[in-house]
Amino acid sequence: MATMASLFLKTPTPSPSLPKSPLVHFRAGSGRLTPGPARIRCGLIEPDGGKLVDLVVEAPQRDLRKRQATSLPQIKLSKIDIQWVHVLSEGWASPLKGFMRESEFLQTLHFNSLRLVDDGSIVNMSVPIVLAIDDLCKNNIGDSTSVALVDDKDKPIAILNDIEIYKHNKEERIARTWGTTAPGLPYAEEAITHAGNWLIGGDLEVIEPIKYHDGLDRFRLSPAELRDEFTRRNADAVFAFQLRNPVHNGHALLMTDTRRRLLEIGYKNPVLLLHPLGGHTKADDVPLQWRMKQHEMVLEDGVLDPETTVVSIFPSPMHYAGPTEVQWHAKARINAGANFYIVGRDPAGMGHPLEKRDLYDADHGKKVLSMAPGLERLNILPFKVWRQ
Amino acid sequence: MATMASLFLKTPTPSPSLPKSPLVHFRAGSGRLTPGPARIRCGLIEPDGGKLVDLVVEAPQRDLRKRQATSLPQIKLSKIDIQWVHVLSEGWASPLKGFMRESEFLQTLHFNSLRLVDDGSIVNMSVPIVLAIDDLCKNNIGDSTSVALVDDKDKPIAILNDIEIYKHNKEERIARTWGTTAPGLPYAEEAITHAGNWLIGGDLEVIEPIKYHDGLDRFRLSPAELRDEFTRRNADAVFAFQLRNPVHNGHALLMTDTRRRLLEIGYKNPVLLLHPLGGHTKADDVPLQWRMKQHEMVLEDGVLDPETTVVSIFPSPMHYAGPTEVQWHAKARINAGANFYIVGRDPAGMGHPLEKRDLYDADHGKKVLSMAPGLERLNILPFKVWRQ
Repeated sequence: MATMASLFLKTPTPSPSLPKSPLVHFRAGSGRLTPGPARIRCGLIEPDGGKLVDLVVEAPQRDLRKRQATSLPQIKLSKIDIQWVHVLSEGWASPLKGFMRESEFLQTLHFNSLRLVDDGSIVNMSVPIVLAIDDLCKNNIGDSTSVALVDDKDKPIAILNDIEIYKHNKEERIARTWGTTAPGLPYAEEAITHAGNWLIGGDLEVIEPIKYHDGLDRFRLSPAELRDEFTRRNADAVFAFQLRNPVHNGHALLMTDTRRRLLEIGYKNPVLLLHPLGGHTKADDVPLQWRMKQHEMVLEDGVLDPETTVVSIFPSPMHYAGPTEVQWHAKARINAGANFYIVGRDPAGMGHPLEKRDLYDADHGKKVLSMAPGLERLNILPFKVWRQ
Repeated sequence: MATMASLFLKTPTPSPSLPKSPLVHFRAGSGRLTPGPARIRCGLIEPDGGKLVDLVVEAPQRDLRKRQATSLPQIKLSKIDIQWVHVLSEGWASPLKGFMRESEFLQTLHFNSLRLVDDGSIVNMSVPIVLAIDDLCKNNIGDSTSVALVDDKDKPIAILNDIEIYKHNKEERIARTWGTTAPGLPYAEEAITHAGNWLIGGDLEVIEPIKYHDGLDRFRLSPAELRDEFTRRNADAVFAFQLRNPVHNGHALLMTDTRRRLLEIGYKNPVLLLHPLGGHTKADDVPLQWRMKQHEMVLEDGVLDPETTVVSIFPSPMHYAGPTEVQWHAKARINAGANFYIVGRDPAGMGHPLEKRDLYDADHGKKVLSMAPGLERLNILPFKVWRQ
C-alpha cells in the first residue's frame, strides 16, 4: 500500500491535484482532474464523447430488423465476436458505434486513441474492436452496403450498416497490440491467427440485448444500468477494480482502504465497482462461474460492504495485452461512471509464450495508463499488494 | 497527380480548409490549419514545443566540457548513435533534449507522441531515439549521474546528464515500431538486435557541432540555418520533399507543379525543401554521395529552380518503418520550418523481410500521417506518381 499511502498522505485535503498518482507528473494538464466536491456537484463522470452509445434496436422495430436481416448477406459470428457485439451494443467503447473501420483501426494500432470527427477531441481506444471475414464471405457480400451478423444457429444478432471492408494484416495487428508476434498468445490463437484476411467495419444495430442464459445475466449490468445504480446510491466517487481472478486478502484490504481514504479526503459516499471480466479468458484462468460464487461469498462474509459495493460482470473478452489492454479496461470503466481506477502490478499481463519471463515489465501498465491520451479525466490509483 | 489536382481544384481560393488533403476529413480540428495569407503574416511555422532545441555547447565552454568528459564514465558511440546525437543536437526532434528516458520511450511506442510537462500539449514523436548500453557499461556507470559519449577513437562527443537507465526490451521495441519482428529489418539488424540490454536516457550537451568531413557537410543545414535561409528568401510557404533515392521525372514534375499550385491559391513565394535523408540506409540504397551529385545536376539542368529550391541533407538514420517512420520524417521538417509535407506511395516502406509482399499497405503511410497526433499544423500533400 506504500504507493496508495504516499498518494493520499501528500494531499490531506481535497484539491485539484489530489487524485493524481505520482505517475501523473508527466501529465501537465492535471488541472482537468476534478476533486471530490466538484464530483459531488457534477454527478458521475461523463462518458467518452459526451453521450453513452446504445446500439440496441428499440423494441417496436425489432421484428422489422429481424426480417430485414434475412434478406442481407450473412456473417457467422464466433463466441468472441458476439462478446464484442455485446460490448459495443451497451456503449462500453463509447463513442464507437460499431466494428472499427480502417481509420479507427489504424488510429488504435498507432496512437491507442481516436480523434472525434465532430469536435476533434481525443478519446482513448487501445484495443482493436474488429470483425474478421474470409475471402468467400467478402465475395458473398459483393456490393451490399449492409450485412446481417448471425450466431452459430443462423439467428440474426445484429445488422452492420454502411460497411467498409479492408485488409486484415494479422502480423501487424498482433505486433502493435501485444509488442510480440510469438506464437501462443491466447487471444491471437483463438481469434486472429486462423481468422479471415479481411476486416469489416460499420455501424451496428443490435436486434436485442445480448444474453448468455448461464445464470449470470443478472450480474451483467450495462454502463447505463451501472450509472443508474451509482446515482441511486448517491455515489460521489466510483472506484473501479478490474479482476479476472478470485478476490484475495490483499485485494479486499486494498478496496476497503481505498474507500476509507476517499472518505478522509472529502468524498461523502465512494462506491466500489467490483468488476470481474466475463468475456473469453485463457484455459488456465479460473472460470467465471466459480469467480462469481467467490465474489458473492466475499460480500456475504462482510469482507466487502454490500452497501457500498456493486458487483457486476464486464463483458469484454481478455487480450492479455498488458499496457495496451489496461487502457481499454480503464476507458470502459469511465463509460460505466468510474472516475477512479485501481491498477496493480503487471495489469492484463501474462508470461511470455516462449521465454521464461513476464511478457511485460510489471510497472509499464500503470506508467502507460497514467500517460495515455483520452484518460486524463480518470484518477489512476496504483497499488502494491503485500506478499507475506 | 490525380490526388494533388483534386486537392487544389476543390479549393480555388485561399481558405482555412484549403491545405487539407482529402485524408484530413477525419481530423475535425482542421481550423488549426492556416491558409496562405496567415502564413505571410506569421512567418514560418513554429517548432514543436515553441522553441527550437540547440544542444551544442557555447564555444567558450567547450574546453571545460571536454575536460569534464574525461573524468566521467564513458559510452562508446556507434556511427548510428552519432547520427542521433547530431539529430538531437540541432533540434530536429524538438522539444526532445536528449536520448529518451523511459516515460518518453513508452509514449513513443504506445502513442507515437509526447505530452509536454509544461503545458500538457502534444507533440508527435513516433520513432524511439534511444541509446543502448550493455551490462558491463551499466556497471561501469555505477552511481554516476552523468556519462561521457565518445567516438571510436575515444574522442568526447557529448555529455549525457541526469541519466536514467532502464530495460531495453528489444522484441517489444521492434514489434511496436515496425509492426513485425521478422528477422532482416535493416535498422534492427544494424542497431537493435545486437545492442545492449539497457537504454540510457538523459539531457544532452554536445561538445561541438557534428561534422562528417565527407565533402557534404556544407549541405547539412540545421533546422535553425534552414529557417534563416527560408526567411532570407521571404518564403511564405515551405513544402518539404523527403527522399532517399535519386530524383526522377515524376518527382520533379510533382515539385514544380506543387509550387505552381501553391502560387495559384494565394501564396506569394513557396520554397521547396528538397531534403534527402543522409543517415544510415540499407546496403542496396543509392549512396548519399551519388544522390547529392544527382540532386545538384537536377538544379544545374534547371529541372528545379535554384531560386525557389533549397537542397539540404536530413541527418537522420533510416528505419524503414513505414507509417510509423513517416511521422518522424514529417515532424522533423516542421522543426526546419516546413508547413507543407509531400507524401507519396508507401513512404519509408520496404519489402517484407520474409514474405513476397510489401511490409506496409501502400496507403497506410499517408492515412496515418493525416491522423497523427501533433501533426495537425502540418498540411499533408498526398500524391501519386504516374507510372508509364
